[in-house]
Amino acid sequence: MTNIKKPKDSYTIMNEIVLPNDTNTLNNLMGGKLLHWMDIVAAISAQKHSNNIVVTASVDGVSFKEPIRLGDVVTLEAYVTRSFNTSMEVYIEVYAQNIPRNEKYKCNDAYYTFVAIDSRNKPVLVPTIEPETEMEKVKYEGALRRRQIRLVMAGKLKKDEATELLAYLNE
Amino acid sequence: MTNIKKPKDSYTIMNEIVLPNDTNTLNNLMGGKLLHWMDIVAAISAQKHSNNIVVTASVDGVSFKEPIRLGDVVTLEAYVTRSFNTSMEVYIEVYAQNIPRNEKYKCNDAYYTFVAIDSRNKPVLVPTIEPETEMEKVKYEGALRRRQIRLVMAGKLKKDEATELLAYLNE
Amino acid sequence: MTNIKKPKDSYTIMNEIVLPNDTNTLNNLMGGKLLHWMDIVAAISAQKHSNNIVVTASVDGVSFKEPIRLGDVVTLEAYVTRSFNTSMEVYIEVYAQNIPRNEKYKCNDAYYTFVAIDSRNKPVLVPTIEPETEMEKVKYEGALRRRQIRLVMAGKLKKDEATELLAYLNE
Amino acid sequence: MTNIKKPKDSYTIMNEIVLPNDTNTLNNLMGGKLLHWMDIVAAISAQKHSNNIVVTASVDGVSFKEPIRLGDVVTLEAYVTRSFNTSMEVYIEVYAQNIPRNEKYKCNDAYYTFVAIDSRNKPVLVPTIEPETEMEKVKYEGALRRRQIRLVMAGKLKKDEATELLAYLNE
Amino acid sequence: MTNIKKPKDSYTIMNEIVLPNDTNTLNNLMGGKLLHWMDIVAAISAQKHSNNIVVTASVDGVSFKEPIRLGDVVTLEAYVTRSFNTSMEVYIEVYAQNIPRNEKYKCNDAYYTFVAIDSRNKPVLVPTIEPETEMEKVKYEGALRRRQIRLVMAGKLKKDEATELLAYLNE
Amino acid sequence: MTNIKKPKDSYTIMNEIVLPNDTNTLNNLMGGKLLHWMDIVAAISAQKHSNNIVVTASVDGVSFKEPIRLGDVVTLEAYVTRSFNTSMEVYIEVYAQNIPRNEKYKCNDAYYTFVAIDSRNKPVLVPTIEPETEMEKVKYEGALRRRQIRLVMAGKLKKDEATELLAYLNE
Repeated sequence: MTNIKKPKDSYTIMNEIVLPNDTNTLNNLMGGKLLHWMDIVAAISAQKHSNNIVVTASVDGVSFKEPIRLGDVVTLEAYVTRSFNTSMEVYIEVYAQNIPRNEKYKCNDAYYTFVAIDSRNKPVLVPTIEPETEMEKVKYEGALRRRQIRLVMAGKLKKDEATELLAYLNE
Repeated sequence: MTNIKKPKDSYTIMNEIVLPNDTNTLNNLMGGKLLHWMDIVAAISAQKHSNNIVVTASVDGVSFKEPIRLGDVVTLEAYVTRSFNTSMEVYIEVYAQNIPRNEKYKCNDAYYTFVAIDSRNKPVLVPTIEPETEMEKVKYEGALRRRQIRLVMAGKLKKDEATELLAYLNE
Repeated sequence: MTNIKKPKDSYTIMNEIVLPNDTNTLNNLMGGKLLHWMDIVAAISAQKHSNNIVVTASVDGVSFKEPIRLGDVVTLEAYVTRSFNTSMEVYIEVYAQNIPRNEKYKCNDAYYTFVAIDSRNKPVLVPTIEPETEMEKVKYEGALRRRQIRLVMAGKLKKDEATELLAYLNE
Repeated sequence: MTNIKKPKDSYTIMNEIVLPNDTNTLNNLMGGKLLHWMDIVAAISAQKHSNNIVVTASVDGVSFKEPIRLGDVVTLEAYVTRSFNTSMEVYIEVYAQNIPRNEKYKCNDAYYTFVAIDSRNKPVLVPTIEPETEMEKVKYEGALRRRQIRLVMAGKLKKDEATELLAYLNE
Repeated sequence: MTNIKKPKDSYTIMNEIVLPNDTNTLNNLMGGKLLHWMDIVAAISAQKHSNNIVVTASVDGVSFKEPIRLGDVVTLEAYVTRSFNTSMEVYIEVYAQNIPRNEKYKCNDAYYTFVAIDSRNKPVLVPTIEPETEMEKVKYEGALRRRQIRLVMAGKLKKDEATELLAYLNE
Repeated sequence: MTNIKKPKDSYTIMNEIVLPNDTNTLNNLMGGKLLHWMDIVAAISAQKHSNNIVVTASVDGVSFKEPIRLGDVVTLEAYVTRSFNTSMEVYIEVYAQNIPRNEKYKCNDAYYTFVAIDSRNKPVLVPTIEPETEMEKVKYEGALRRRQIRLVMAGKLKKDEATELLAYLNE
């Protein structure tokens, strides 16, 4: 198994059309449906990185900036930003497009983490990440802080052990 | 309109059975499906608090502790922890139950925020929250920190303005 | 196993929002979809009473009083009214709510019966019911008559053996 | 508009395959799904009889005799048995078939009633029924008794006014 | 096993109502949904002919003549036109009906082919077809040409071996 | 509006995971579901080419080479091969991937045609195509033949007017 991979190795793209089935009573894409699509594209990305079955471990930082309208084309792009032993953080960006009106805008991004497991449900090690572009490096750096926030908030890490997070906030 | 409400006024409960339709290839409830159910129960709770239409604004702190199995009964409980002008934070707890085997365990919690809007999509003010129980008070206090984390991470708040968050982490 | 249970032990509540996916061409909740939700909430209730897997045996007395509109919150409440060896009658009440307009009304009730089975599909005995409230006692009494109607109508009971039913109708 | 129609004018047939999506955890067709299919076939039948939009008014006498297995072909047959001013009773029979094993059996029947409405949701008169075959005559006769049971049980008809029902039970 | 069967032996009919769930943003039935329904009715028909499990092998000649509207009743009729060792061609006609407005029109037809398989996924021989009506004979004749087009276009048959196709086109 | 576009301008990619919901009783992706996904990716591609709303006009040449298994990642790639006034032919290739087992294979391709329409359902002219790569040129050439086959088979073109088709088959 390769021990080091690049974000582009797990880059995954998905396109969907917002159909009546996917909308709320305002004719906008339901939040829950978009969370579901993000879970699928991110899971494929994490599979590509780990070459294993993966299960969703956490979801964070999903913010819904713009409503997505019935009939819009939704493009989801995902890649692994960093791995931690058996887990991976995946960054997902969501764009919506009204093609006839030639409008395209970013409407959403989020961080999902996944754990790679073998066929008996045991976590397995995944390759480390070597970021290449500037953006990938920013995401790689931030991943550690986001992980510490998740752990502190979930009560699994003592506050004074969240070193990178504290350094970042107090700098 | 009442200007002050209690968490119990928005308390909402939902029960679902995990059917084949809802599972991944390991026969566990799909993360995306659970995110969808949480969105629905939390939206009902936010509607009860605001007496208005609501739209999902952000999702945070979802951690999947235990896989939920095909056939399990899933119970979702939600209430509003705190409001900020036109937005509300909703706390959701998820329990899974295998009734024939008499097993019940907590498998998940999360924070969703919603914005109340009127029929022309304009945000409207919502009542403030007056927590009653100890747990509600803890959630009420934490809501401000969680909001500051969201805003700092999304680049919408300067780090040194996240006063409560910094005080909490450095205490 | 407990041999006697109370209706409240099987009390189950479910909340759903009517989404476009659930409506007919008049923007009302489809009858079939509501029958499906009632089946789920009633099955959870019967599982709680029997602590076993259950299968739907019959459906009766479903009357659709008021159309339920797109966007309404639907609340389903279910409990076991009476058991007969291996079968249980579950009573389900359905309320619809337009929260922004502050309207809530009862729109539906029904009786579903379930049979408890073991893992080899064999019917198993279930606890008997001890009703507590006035309403529960009324439901408990009526359950025998409703059972006799079902059996007479299905040709499984001779008319003159439907003693309670005849007494009730002729009284 | 024709004032008299025959049951065969509203005869409607529907075939479905039981897919994983439709099953419970025992790999049998879910009761709720079958109730949904019966609602669709019966609504088409009632539309054919009334030449109008129809809404489900009540469901009765659904009994699940045999589990229907994953992969089975389900055949639903429906026709209007009798009309009462603006409402119609539809009888539905359900057969399941395992074609490779050459098994076919009746597994279910039910009575649904529908009300015909115009485009402003007002009930409209529907043609009367003239039964032809022996079976259609039996169903036509029974329709009045079943209607009286529904009304008595729902508290909308006094017991001593349910003349045909009482005569039948006491004969 | 019978070695010869007639088209009517596999004749299958299916009725569906177009619900919001099935439509695109113009309130017409989605092409993809109709392709799905045609796959189901054709698979049942091929099962009836072969008395075996069947898998879809190819789809051709689907042309969407008229949009089908929300609320329409869709009737699909299918029968096997001809078999080739282990495969069968199924012809499907689709009609849409607006019952309240008394409109019915043909909106679609298509040819699907299926292969019969045993429980270990091996193709198995199917009965031959003996057409009866004029239309069935026309379909039977054309089936060979359509098969040759499929094979030539897929690069599985040399052009000069498509004898019947060439004779037909050059006649 | 640009009058000439290249196939790459309409290139669209979609990734999906095969979930239990999408499979038949053999745990393979249902043909009908794949037809549905192909319709969506091809419609997005045709929208990109035409900058208009599009409706499916025909489906041809879908051949299912390999079953796609539960849990596989399905990748669909689509681009416009040629346009004819108001219609476009879209070529779709489908790959399936079992990432943990490092298997990837082509399992399917198809041609869908779409018509571009304006907001009053009237067909509108679309840009012409200028193919660039060798493969795109082959698809461009073949599009005319495939169109003539469709028209001859649908009885909309006389056989002796299908000039390119005849030349190709007789060469």
